[in-house]
Amino acid sequence: MDNIVIFSLTSSKELTKEIVNILGVEQGEIVVTHFADGEVLVEPQQSVRGKHVFIIQSTCAPVNDKIMELLICLDACRRASCKEVTCVIPYYGYARQDRKARARQPITARLVADLLQAAGADRVVSVDLHAPQIQGYFKIPSDNLTAVDMIGQYFRTQNMHDVVVVSPDHGGAIRARNLSNSIPDSTIAIIDKRRIRPNFSESMNLIGDVKGKDCIIIDDLVDTGGSLLGCIKMLKENGALDIYCAATHGVFSKNALQKIAQSGVKEFVITNSIERTEEELSKVPNVKVLSIALLLASSIEAIACNKPISNVYRLFHSDEEEEMNFKNLAGL
Amino acid sequence: MDNIVIFSLTSSKELTKEIVNILGVEQGEIVVTHFADGEVLVEPQQSVRGKHVFIIQSTCAPVNDKIMELLICLDACRRASCKEVTCVIPYYGYARQDRKARARQPITARLVADLLQAAGADRVVSVDLHAPQIQGYFKIPSDNLTAVDMIGQYFRTQNMHDVVVVSPDHGGAIRARNLSNSIPDSTIAIIDKRRIRPNFSESMNLIGDVKGKDCIIIDDLVDTGGSLLGCIKMLKENGALDIYCAATHGVFSKNALQKIAQSGVKEFVITNSIERTEEELSKVPNVKVLSIALLLASSIEAIACNKPISNVYRLFHSDEEEEMNFKNLAGL
Amino acid sequence: MDNIVIFSLTSSKELTKEIVNILGVEQGEIVVTHFADGEVLVEPQQSVRGKHVFIIQSTCAPVNDKIMELLICLDACRRASCKEVTCVIPYYGYARQDRKARARQPITARLVADLLQAAGADRVVSVDLHAPQIQGYFKIPSDNLTAVDMIGQYFRTQNMHDVVVVSPDHGGAIRARNLSNSIPDSTIAIIDKRRIRPNFSESMNLIGDVKGKDCIIIDDLVDTGGSLLGCIKMLKENGALDIYCAATHGVFSKNALQKIAQSGVKEFVITNSIERTEEELSKVPNVKVLSIALLLASSIEAIACNKPISNVYRLFHSDEEEEMNFKNLAGL
Amino acid sequence: MDNIVIFSLTSSKELTKEIVNILGVEQGEIVVTHFADGEVLVEPQQSVRGKHVFIIQSTCAPVNDKIMELLICLDACRRASCKEVTCVIPYYGYARQDRKARARQPITARLVADLLQAAGADRVVSVDLHAPQIQGYFKIPSDNLTAVDMIGQYFRTQNMHDVVVVSPDHGGAIRARNLSNSIPDSTIAIIDKRRIRPNFSESMNLIGDVKGKDCIIIDDLVDTGGSLLGCIKMLKENGALDIYCAATHGVFSKNALQKIAQSGVKEFVITNSIERTEEELSKVPNVKVLSIALLLASSIEAIACNKPISNVYRLFHSDEEEEMNFKNLAGL
Amino acid sequence: MDNIVIFSLTSSKELTKEIVNILGVEQGEIVVTHFADGEVLVEPQQSVRGKHVFIIQSTCAPVNDKIMELLICLDACRRASCKEVTCVIPYYGYARQDRKARARQPITARLVADLLQAAGADRVVSVDLHAPQIQGYFKIPSDNLTAVDMIGQYFRTQNMHDVVVVSPDHGGAIRARNLSNSIPDSTIAIIDKRRIRPNFSESMNLIGDVKGKDCIIIDDLVDTGGSLLGCIKMLKENGALDIYCAATHGVFSKNALQKIAQSGVKEFVITNSIERTEEELSKVPNVKVLSIALLLASSIEAIACNKPISNVYRLFHSDEEEEMNFKNLAGL
Amino acid sequence: MDNIVIFSLTSSKELTKEIVNILGVEQGEIVVTHFADGEVLVEPQQSVRGKHVFIIQSTCAPVNDKIMELLICLDACRRASCKEVTCVIPYYGYARQDRKARARQPITARLVADLLQAAGADRVVSVDLHAPQIQGYFKIPSDNLTAVDMIGQYFRTQNMHDVVVVSPDHGGAIRARNLSNSIPDSTIAIIDKRRIRPNFSESMNLIGDVKGKDCIIIDDLVDTGGSLLGCIKMLKENGALDIYCAATHGVFSKNALQKIAQSGVKEFVITNSIERTEEELSKVPNVKVLSIALLLASSIEAIACNKPISNVYRLFHSDEEEEMNFKNLAGL
Repeated sequence: MDNIVIFSLTSSKELTKEIVNILGVEQGEIVVTHFADGEVLVEPQQSVRGKHVFIIQSTCAPVNDKIMELLICLDACRRASCKEVTCVIPYYGYARQDRKARARQPITARLVADLLQAAGADRVVSVDLHAPQIQGYFKIPSDNLTAVDMIGQYFRTQNMHDVVVVSPDHGGAIRARNLSNSIPDSTIAIIDKRRIRPNFSESMNLIGDVKGKDCIIIDDLVDTGGSLLGCIKMLKENGALDIYCAATHGVFSKNALQKIAQSGVKEFVITNSIERTEEELSKVPNVKVLSIALLLASSIEAIACNKPISNVYRLFHSDEEEEMNFKNLAGL
Repeated sequence: MDNIVIFSLTSSKELTKEIVNILGVEQGEIVVTHFADGEVLVEPQQSVRGKHVFIIQSTCAPVNDKIMELLICLDACRRASCKEVTCVIPYYGYARQDRKARARQPITARLVADLLQAAGADRVVSVDLHAPQIQGYFKIPSDNLTAVDMIGQYFRTQNMHDVVVVSPDHGGAIRARNLSNSIPDSTIAIIDKRRIRPNFSESMNLIGDVKGKDCIIIDDLVDTGGSLLGCIKMLKENGALDIYCAATHGVFSKNALQKIAQSGVKEFVITNSIERTEEELSKVPNVKVLSIALLLASSIEAIACNKPISNVYRLFHSDEEEEMNFKNLAGL
Repeated sequence: MDNIVIFSLTSSKELTKEIVNILGVEQGEIVVTHFADGEVLVEPQQSVRGKHVFIIQSTCAPVNDKIMELLICLDACRRASCKEVTCVIPYYGYARQDRKARARQPITARLVADLLQAAGADRVVSVDLHAPQIQGYFKIPSDNLTAVDMIGQYFRTQNMHDVVVVSPDHGGAIRARNLSNSIPDSTIAIIDKRRIRPNFSESMNLIGDVKGKDCIIIDDLVDTGGSLLGCIKMLKENGALDIYCAATHGVFSKNALQKIAQSGVKEFVITNSIERTEEELSKVPNVKVLSIALLLASSIEAIACNKPISNVYRLFHSDEEEEMNFKNLAGL
Repeated sequence: MDNIVIFSLTSSKELTKEIVNILGVEQGEIVVTHFADGEVLVEPQQSVRGKHVFIIQSTCAPVNDKIMELLICLDACRRASCKEVTCVIPYYGYARQDRKARARQPITARLVADLLQAAGADRVVSVDLHAPQIQGYFKIPSDNLTAVDMIGQYFRTQNMHDVVVVSPDHGGAIRARNLSNSIPDSTIAIIDKRRIRPNFSESMNLIGDVKGKDCIIIDDLVDTGGSLLGCIKMLKENGALDIYCAATHGVFSKNALQKIAQSGVKEFVITNSIERTEEELSKVPNVKVLSIALLLASSIEAIACNKPISNVYRLFHSDEEEEMNFKNLAGL
Repeated sequence: MDNIVIFSLTSSKELTKEIVNILGVEQGEIVVTHFADGEVLVEPQQSVRGKHVFIIQSTCAPVNDKIMELLICLDACRRASCKEVTCVIPYYGYARQDRKARARQPITARLVADLLQAAGADRVVSVDLHAPQIQGYFKIPSDNLTAVDMIGQYFRTQNMHDVVVVSPDHGGAIRARNLSNSIPDSTIAIIDKRRIRPNFSESMNLIGDVKGKDCIIIDDLVDTGGSLLGCIKMLKENGALDIYCAATHGVFSKNALQKIAQSGVKEFVITNSIERTEEELSKVPNVKVLSIALLLASSIEAIACNKPISNVYRLFHSDEEEEMNFKNLAGL
Repeated sequence: MDNIVIFSLTSSKELTKEIVNILGVEQGEIVVTHFADGEVLVEPQQSVRGKHVFIIQSTCAPVNDKIMELLICLDACRRASCKEVTCVIPYYGYARQDRKARARQPITARLVADLLQAAGADRVVSVDLHAPQIQGYFKIPSDNLTAVDMIGQYFRTQNMHDVVVVSPDHGGAIRARNLSNSIPDSTIAIIDKRRIRPNFSESMNLIGDVKGKDCIIIDDLVDTGGSLLGCIKMLKENGALDIYCAATHGVFSKNALQKIAQSGVKEFVITNSIERTEEELSKVPNVKVLSIALLLASSIEAIACNKPISNVYRLFHSDEEEEMNFKNLAGL
């Protein structure tokens, strides 16, 4: 571990502190200057020559600034003759632009992967990518960790009865299944959204039974929260008891955090993949932040010491799922 | 259209004939030689210099031979100074290897995309990729067409009542929703599979209501059919009336085709993305093959004549979906 | 010209209108959406299939957003099968990060060139790059136009006597020489800055004679304006009569525009490579904005119609300079 | 040697066992799954993180499956963060497609080299490539070993008199010369094939004298054996005594092995670059298999320990030849 | 043909004149400046924007200057927005460095191919490459023409009896066979060189019969001529009648041309792939120069007009050979 | 340092000897053969497998031969499995072709950077590049050292009074400022060249005051010397006392060295970036050669041992400049 340097850019400062504490290493010094005209200069303050550099940076809002910081940092490290660079990106922005939903759309999730590689990235570590296929957007090694098992572990410690894990849309059904797998005796339900005609309002329908049960709505990220609020309302109408929410990434555009906190959910569990200020959080007492620092620190150690990262996967990813994924893959 | 050449390799010969008939062009002559030692030689028999070449080839079983034929054909066309090459791959093999489900797995769907580009492909046209994100595995333009609307159109002409579209697993929920969108007044249901512990048998659960209703099980592909047979059985147990199946790609390993045909499904709708012999089909009268020739011919014409391919998308892709996809994308 | 599409992103909207008016073509429709979380989506609203696309976008403040808009637009156009894309970048941000001034600095001007090429740019048109060597950061064809001759032409029409062209630093001496070449009987002077020791204030010295003469301070860009204000003060102290300023790119961070306008300069000539609002400009009557629309429109026409762009160079670039540049190059 | 992992895929299993025995290392565990639909999944069963991986795989029949196994294995190792990968390819398939013999032919030997590099190969070790120029198809380091000296060593131990080394065609003349160099007092002869007109049968002619002498026909590979059988017949007609054959690679398509064994040759010497079953070999007692395990093991050790591989070359490659090759190269 | 520009650099000026005369086009104007310090500047004097540029340049002595001229010209044409560039390289220097004959040798023939592609070449046309496999060193389309059929045609018009085509070494045996194929009733012979031990002189041996016959020694190139002189001597000793020599490329280092002309050969046939001055040739009346202008002009026309170049191949490449090559390829 | 190999090609032999002496390592053995036809063969004589190779080679006249030697050496080292290669290029030829001064010019300084990377360079070390932006022509790490501080140090030891540092043209003003910074109490002056009209002779003008002062004319390189001679003459006319000249790179085409030595300059200081023979130098006693061996040896040691190269920069690059460069960069 004496040949590594861990840099934090501007979006994951607290998380990085936790990580270097766990690893017992000193954090690398780096200066990020934002000039008056918006240009960014990133200057490592210590030699990286021959070192394995880890750059920790979520590409959350303001996402374009965060991406450019990361790219410029990569260029600086490369030109300073570092041995290799691993980008640790707890929240990978633009992940939702992962296919052409309409003619002439970009696939920005792939574009960003290409930019990182063009700037000199050797490896990427991410957490709960919007779609696991995004791993394949990288030609370089990419490890996609998951916080879902950690979230499951948390809920197992809560005093809940008759749990139903709810996916707020069809795209999240597998994620709901994965969480349910780690909560004994839980079942799942899915919100089925349908739009009869364009410009007509969307109709929502609940598939599965929540009456008299505790619900956990799970999603990979919560942005404006509109969809989630509708989901909460529908669960109530269908007779759910306590409603919990969980998401790996709390994007919370506009005042989404407040709105959801006041929506009647018992608890909203997120991680620190995107950092919130103490002040923000103090206003929303029913929001619980789990830290992914251990998850990332373990991965960094594995990568730095050439130990199999599969142990990290295993820690948070149950055997059943592995088996099932494999069966799916094999078409069995 | 006089500057294009359309070649068929060995896996999509009948489909190519349909396509060139629709387009009113002559099929390009090409010789594919399989030598005694397994090596393949692909030799275009007419000049491709300055031409836009379309190679039509499903990478179905024996998939490795089909991929190598395609790669060698690309090399031959490139070295013969063609202007550009579009690969039309109705069935894109290895699409299920699209993420690392376990440590040290390959992402072969990306690898194949890289191989095609290394061999000289300029553009790829595919149909109902296992995951839409696979489009992003290509740096070159890639158009992913869908046969789901065509399948929906077919079912609208059948005399069905109270239709439930059933997804055989969570991964297919969006596809089921898409098909349901094109069948008025249909609802959807999802098979929820769960494995309690590794080596224990999987438990299946139906989310949604099928009692006294006609069901359409929809999947992108059917391979060994084991999962589908379990699904059919469960629907029967839950009181479904007529059961239909639909899939874009009929892989049908082993004797899957026979087993499913004899499983009590009223009709099984597939496309000719993977070709079946007349003889095979004569033994399974309840299997209905829809042709994707028009879909592909329209795309080829659009690409060759620089007309927007969005018209082709629109033909088979309803406005509602577009709107919904966009809302999802925008996080609304 | 009927095979081209000209798109404007968000930074050069008025300039683009002028350009399409000069060319007599319709502007391409494109939608740039900035979502609540800062992500950008760029969607061409018309087919670009087989077209030569020109994207006009200055990468001025907020520079990272402008760069990402451009990169995403490139991805969208590439995936939509455009024939080629030319990026017209009137102001090329990050140009000042063009060498490692200290250990471990990035060379962001090269990085941005790589990003543009990774995203699919085929050709770049720029105006008065901070250093002409930046052209070489592109492997693709790059044309670097100059507004200096147009600025010279403007000053020739003003009623000035005994003109001295002043470079505010050593790096701009060649630019001052170029402007002086186009103003008959003008001489040049250079501000010689020197810092005795770090943390000591910089000492400035004037090389050349300005007493009783009209001065034109010329620079490629003006950012915070601090250097320029010092320069103006020194010229006054040395007995200069009327003081004019000129710069191709008016970056004007903070309130630089106001400060310079009120510094006693007779007139400040800039171009519209970076757009200013009417309101901003109405407050600074001694700021004169020259339009580079004709310069860019001529270049676009030359590129689109395969006419030599050297005619455009010639229009604004005098023969003498060419000859001198060549002699320099040849070491004569 | 403790930082390497040696994997065998499906074509060189026995050879790999010999190699790891010689090197005294454990063979790496890897699972190669062929699914019912022909798709292949390759999963290393032990961590390769930071390791130097050697993959041993001949790309013999079924060649396309063997190539895809190799490519997929490369992808898996790369994504699992191996340090580097050396492909050991005892028999390099498609080597005969090494030039455009006719218009519009592919150069598949180059294509395969590109595919290996696209999938992540860092180095290639091969044996007796059909043409030594194929080394240059790789941009990465490539070492082409030869079994000819080992074959020469074998024949020196046989009780032969008046040896003539015979090349079955003009392309093999240098190989025959090389073998003759390592057999004292041997001479060479060449079969001169000529086709008067297309569709007319080929005429064969012997250049050189074999009457009353022992002959060794040497080729790099024997495929269908037709050419070799004709050659044997001609040597007999010209009065040759004992006839031996030798080839590095025994491709033996169809029943070539039997036919040649029964053709009257005294002994047929091949290597285990392509593996034969014990059962196959038991039927052809006059076929002698020499093992290239030592050759490959020495090379792997040299590569793994950064020792010069030239020692390995020297072991099997006499000084005379080196000198001669050099003279040729220098045009002396 | 009105969209092409044909440039000649400094090594093939007369040949280019012949070619443009045959094609009836004007030669493109270009200035190649060699500065006093050895640097080269290449400046096209006419617009190449949107044009297909053909650069004609043999990379003969001084080979490094010729290569750099070509690379710099490619860079200039690329940056000047040409549509595509075809390099016509009648003599491809460094072709003999096409494999690692000893440890740590470069493969310069591949390196040069990479340099040409890095500088922007789109296609290469060459003549009688030292090894046909060098075609595969290019990823871009490469056409390797042959002058052997033209040479054969010439000898058929000479009054020769009982012709033996002689290869001066084993590597040239196929070339000798090809020439013999185009001369009715000719046979072939091969010089078998052998070096007993390093530092011992080489022994030569003739395989085949030349007594009382006319001989044609054929090689791809003649450099210092040492090998050829030895060959001539041996043929005389073996009772040959008239001895002719032929080679596509007359490199003729040192005074090789004179030495061979005075060696007693009846006629030495070369081509103008490397240009000789009239003065040089006037001193060697028994040297006959055939022009490859028609061969190259036909190829340029085919490439420029998208006509199959196979017609050009056919013109100089007999059907028999094609058939035989194919049989070899197929291992028949 | 035991894992490195330092090779000298043909242009920097004496310099390399000094460097290996300083470092206390043995020089690597390598053979560079120039064949009669101008082709070059480069063969390392010792294993480089797993080694960090440093190749020291100025690309001075004959520049094309020197570049090809370097490229071929890179290819040989790469193919011989070296770990990495650093090119140490004391004088980087073609640096003056660093922008398109006229339409259709190449940017050869970028081209050469691309060629080096295509051939396998991992890092480049240069000295006083003609423009610092050329660093950005490399995607790989590039360190541009400067001899200006060493030159300043030398002049501080001379007995000079009232020093004026003179730039012979505008492009060199920053360099003059840098040298002046290291000579206490010195001022600067600039020669202002202007050409009224093409084909008219250039007029020169002196900006700044030299009367009664000692002058040092500083340039990065001196080629034909014409410009420098004019500059010396003008300084004399303007009343300068002793005139010194200094340049990092003494190109000295034609008889420039003699002409300048005899022009009345008191001393001409150059470095050994380009080597001169003892004989040449003995004829010009007022030419002083400073050695850059320590500068390069320190850099090689830093690179080889992963020590920060910034110490080397600092040794020869004063803090003030760093600060000023930074301020410029930041637009302050």
